[in-house]
Amino acid sequence: MNDASIIGILGGTGAQGRGLGYRFARAGRRVLLGSRDAGRAEAAAREVGFGVLGAANADVAGRADVVVVAVPYDGHRELLESMRQPLAGKVVVDCVNAIGRVDGGLHALPVPEGSAAEQAAAVLPDSRVVAAFHHVSAVLLLDRDREAIDCDCLVLGDDGDAVDVVIDLAAAIPGVRGYYAGTLRDAGQVEALTANLLAVNKRYRAHAGLRLTDV
Amino acid sequence: MNDASIIGILGGTGAQGRGLGYRFARAGRRVLLGSRDAGRAEAAAREVGFGVLGAANADVAGRADVVVVAVPYDGHRELLESMRQPLAGKVVVDCVNAIGRVDGGLHALPVPEGSAAEQAAAVLPDSRVVAAFHHVSAVLLLDRDREAIDCDCLVLGDDGDAVDVVIDLAAAIPGVRGYYAGTLRDAGQVEALTANLLAVNKRYRAHAGLRLTDV
Repeated sequence: MNDASIIGILGGTGAQGRGLGYRFARAGRRVLLGSRDAGRAEAAAREVGFGVLGAANADVAGRADVVVVAVPYDGHRELLESMRQPLAGKVVVDCVNAIGRVDGGLHALPVPEGSAAEQAAAVLPDSRVVAAFHHVSAVLLLDRDREAIDCDCLVLGDDGDAVDVVIDLAAAIPGVRGYYAGTLRDAGQVEALTANLLAVNKRYRAHAGLRLTDV
Repeated sequence: MNDASIIGILGGTGAQGRGLGYRFARAGRRVLLGSRDAGRAEAAAREVGFGVLGAANADVAGRADVVVVAVPYDGHRELLESMRQPLAGKVVVDCVNAIGRVDGGLHALPVPEGSAAEQAAAVLPDSRVVAAFHHVSAVLLLDRDREAIDCDCLVLGDDGDAVDVVIDLAAAIPGVRGYYAGTLRDAGQVEALTANLLAVNKRYRAHAGLRLTDV
């Protein structure tokens, strides 16, 4: 990836997608926000500013060089199945947390493939799937008064070069450091840990993130 | 728990158990290290110093007020089944990570109950099971030149008072802060995340721990 690479974000009108798009664009990267509805994507892109453009998800998948998947888990598989061809050969960064309401609380949902990232890899055999950006708070990403985000980004994948692309992308956000933290088979617990951060947030009225220490 | 409470550590001759015992004792707590073999426990206790005593696991389970479980996952269930009676009514702090060698790497192992902590709760219905201390590096705990440990402790449990006891216990280690991070059903990913920290340690030659940010 170089500075002219286009970063596309599927589900770019959600808080996480918009927040990441805003931070990447603010750091000088070219960003395309995607949505099922091109009009909504264009509106979100205008709101973000920094030259961000909006388009339909399929369009974004085709035009972007690196594609971030920031859709809800519900519909994740179907969306990716429909984009196998435009995503072939590309680095696909899955930040989906399979979290849902279970017995009145927010908990990890069982994923047949083990994790959303492994599901993406199963559905997109010709893409280079990396898991990342699960724990960066959307509220903080979208807070324009906040210069830097106090959070590390755990980056997981089976393709070392693709992992390095995403570690660089993470570092484009001031304050964020990207670290390799395992292969895709270790992604389930990283995604599920978001349920613990939600419990922390509820108890301490926080927007908790994670830092690795002693690295 | 008050300062006169005895903290017992099952599996107290392993690196994690010895490291925690050393830190609690250095902070002025009364510590009993347990082992299958009383003689080995006594030797480990002498090595730790700070008034720490050693005894057989069953003895430790009976005499301690708060019991830390720091045994390998292999044998975890059997050990706890044999101690149901002495552990009844007590706060049992499970720090076991169900991690093992799979396909040549260290990964999370499937646990029928969902996590080692939920297994402990299933086996010990009369104890107050809390999950904690999964991510504190044994190497750093045992490093006597290191005054403070740069790591937070995620504390999970269904019994609020027992959770608070363990949050206090975590804070006895200089540098460590304990935070409530969910109920036992959220423990699996916290335990499994140790596999990711091992991947980080291997890649960056580190002893990685975790800090919560923005809390």
